[in-house]
Amino acid sequence: MTRTLRVIGIGPGGVRQVTLEAVDAMQGVDAFFVLDKGAASSPLRDIRRQMCDEHIGPGRYRFVEIADPPRDRDPVDYDAEVRRWHDARSEAIEGALLAELSDSGVGAILVWGDPSLYDSTLRITDAIVERGRVALDVEVVAGVTSASALTAAHRILANRIGEPIHITTGRRLASTPAGADTNQIVMLDADCTFLRTAGPDDHIWWGAYLGTPDEIVLSGTVGEIGETIRATRTEARERHGWIMDIYLLRTP
Amino acid sequence: MTRTLRVIGIGPGGVRQVTLEAVDAMQGVDAFFVLDKGAASSPLRDIRRQMCDEHIGPGRYRFVEIADPPRDRDPVDYDAEVRRWHDARSEAIEGALLAELSDSGVGAILVWGDPSLYDSTLRITDAIVERGRVALDVEVVAGVTSASALTAAHRILANRIGEPIHITTGRRLASTPAGADTNQIVMLDADCTFLRTAGPDDHIWWGAYLGTPDEIVLSGTVGEIGETIRATRTEARERHGWIMDIYLLRTP
Repeated sequence: MTRTLRVIGIGPGGVRQVTLEAVDAMQGVDAFFVLDKGAASSPLRDIRRQMCDEHIGPGRYRFVEIADPPRDRDPVDYDAEVRRWHDARSEAIEGALLAELSDSGVGAILVWGDPSLYDSTLRITDAIVERGRVALDVEVVAGVTSASALTAAHRILANRIGEPIHITTGRRLASTPAGADTNQIVMLDADCTFLRTAGPDDHIWWGAYLGTPDEIVLSGTVGEIGETIRATRTEARERHGWIMDIYLLRTP
Repeated sequence: MTRTLRVIGIGPGGVRQVTLEAVDAMQGVDAFFVLDKGAASSPLRDIRRQMCDEHIGPGRYRFVEIADPPRDRDPVDYDAEVRRWHDARSEAIEGALLAELSDSGVGAILVWGDPSLYDSTLRITDAIVERGRVALDVEVVAGVTSASALTAAHRILANRIGEPIHITTGRRLASTPAGADTNQIVMLDADCTFLRTAGPDDHIWWGAYLGTPDEIVLSGTVGEIGETIRATRTEARERHGWIMDIYLLRTP
C-alpha cells in the first residue's frame, strides 16, 4: 500500500493563474498539508483556502496545519542550518502523512509559483522517500513562476535577443559572475540588495503581490526609482504584514 | 478606437497545462494569428487547434495563418539577421491586424510556454506599437515554461540550496562564465552542445515533447547517457518531423 503526495504548483497568487492540470490534481485529495509559518503568513493561507473553495468547493476539502519547526535566520553556517531545518520539517510532514492519510491515501501540498524554484518541498519529500519509513509516490505539477508573472505584468521579455538569464537570490546577487549579470531575475531579497550592486543606469522591473488584487509594479533605472522601490516595499510590507516580491535587473 | 492583441502563454504543450487565466483570455477573440513555419511545424498547429477546440469549442474560433518571412539560419551577423527577420514578421502581423480585425477587434497569439522566454512575439508587438500605424493594446498572459515542465517531469528542483540558475541557449552554452555554470537550463540546442562543453560527471536531466503524450525524459551523467540523448533526439525528430526539447545541466 502506497500513499500519494501531490506537490502542486499553484502560480504566483492569482486564483486564475492556476493550470487546469493543477485543478485536476486538487480533486480527490484526502488532506492538504500546510506548514504554519505563524500569524504573519495567514493571508497566504487565506489565498490557498480561496483557491480550494473555487476549484474544489467550500467544505469539500481538509487542511492539516503542521507547526513549522523553528529556524535560525542568521546562522553561522547557512547551508547546515537550512539542512537541519529541512530535516525537522520532513519529520513533521512524515508524521502527518502517517497520522492523517490511510495506507493508500492521497495528500497534497500547494506550492506558490512552481515547485522547482527556491522551494524546499521536493527536498523534504526526497528525504521522506529516502528514509523509507512510509511508502510514498510523489507527483509534481508545474506552475507559473513569479518570474513569468513579473514579465507578463510589465509586458516584457526576460532577455534581449539570444542573451542568457541568471536567476538568483538577494543573498547571492553580489556574487554573480561578470558576464552572467546581463539579465538577472532576483528572488528572496528582503534587503533591496540591488541598491548596493547595480549601476544607476541599470534598468529594474519590480513587482510585488503579483497576480493578486494588491499587485504593485514599478520600472525605471535604478538611479531613478531604486529608492522608490525600497520605500514602496517597506510601506506595503507593513500594511499587509507580509510581502512576496521579485525583480528583473538588466545592464544597459 | 483601439485594437487589442492578447499574447497568451499556453504552456509547454499539454492541453491541461494551460492556466484558467489563459482559458479566460481565449474567449471573445475575433481571430487567432498563427505564423506559418511550413509543413514541419503543422503538429504544433494541431495542438493549438486541439486547445481551442477544448477550451473555446470546435468551430467557435478563427485561425488566420500568416506566411512567415524567410530567415537566414546561418548568417554572418546573427543579431542583425534576427532583427531584420523580426521587422519583416512585425510588418506581416501589422497587416493582418488591420485586415482581419475591426477597429476595436480582439486578436490573439498563442505562445508555447511563457511569452517572456526566448520568444519573439513581444518584440514584434513592441515594433508595431512603436511604428504607430495601428492603435494597439497589448495584453500578456503568463504561461508554464518548458523549464518548469522539465523539472516537474523529473520531480527535481532546478537548484541546490540557495544556488543560482542560469538559463541559456545552445548557441551561448559554451560562453557561460565560470561560476554561473552550476545549474544551467539550456533551450534551443539542436546540436547537443553539452557533449562538447560538459564534463563526464556533470548530471543532465533532458526532456522532449514535455506535457504531451509523446513526452520523453532521460537523466544521468553526461558520460553515461550523453550519447543516448543525442541518438534519442535524432530518432524522435525524424519520426515526428519536429522536436522541442530542453535540459538541465548540473556540475557535481
